Amino acid sequence: MTEKKRERGYSGFLMRQRAFLKLYLITYAEESGSYGFQALGLLKDKFKQFGFKPQHSEIYRALHELMEEDILKRKKAPKDDAKYQEIAVYYIHDRERAKAYKRLVKADLDRCMGILHTAIRDNY
Amino acid sequence: MTEKKRERGYSGFLMRQRAFLKLYLITYAEESGSYGFQALGLLKDKFKQFGFKPQHSEIYRALHELMEEDILKRKKAPKDDAKYQEIAVYYIHDRERAKAYKRLVKADLDRCMGILHTAIRDNY
Repeated sequence: MTEKKRERGYSGFLMRQRAFLKLYLITYAEESGSYGFQALGLLKDKFKQFGFKPQHSEIYRALHELMEEDILKRKKAPKDDAKYQEIAVYYIHDRERAKAYKRLVKADLDRCMGILHTAIRDNY
Repeated sequence: MTEKKRERGYSGFLMRQRAFLKLYLITYAEESGSYGFQALGLLKDKFKQFGFKPQHSEIYRALHELMEEDILKRKKAPKDDAKYQEIAVYYIHDRERAKAYKRLVKADLDRCMGILHTAIRDNY
């Protein structure tokens, strides 16, 4: 996050979609052990009611960042319905790093809630 | 907002800073009658506690959009402390349009709150 703050013109408004998706990708791995990219369709459906449709490519980039940060890892696993086919599945590699990242994002979520609450109180 | 939705890769995540600033710029004009650009320093100070510091240039662009949309207008007014100097002040031009815009932004604020609440509930 420090790097982003150094960007020219960065003003620190609401959180970035990337961090938001990474949060979910960690929780899914914590809860389910491992999942394939296909399973992430759930994430796309979940927020439809709020008019938010994360792009396939953005989810993919979030997964890649988590692997670069040693939080998730990828392995090959047999595909459920095809005995001799394999798919890539993602799982938690470093549980402590995962928790630390989630704490950071929680602080950012609270910060954003503060901004929105203030705006509602001040303007309506 | 419709135009933005047509942007390539637009996913409808959290609201844009521009709309957020326009909301405040309308409310300030509703409450104070008119104000000069200097008065907007208040807006910059207000959100410091949340790590959000709107840029001068971004506030200026928001003011300009509001003028293009016939919501605000600009006029010359005498400067308080200098008898023969003038400054530009902004005031509400179309009260109904201003209200309609605020209603739109309220819906967006509520939508964003929904996204953030969902994430907190799902991940913590």
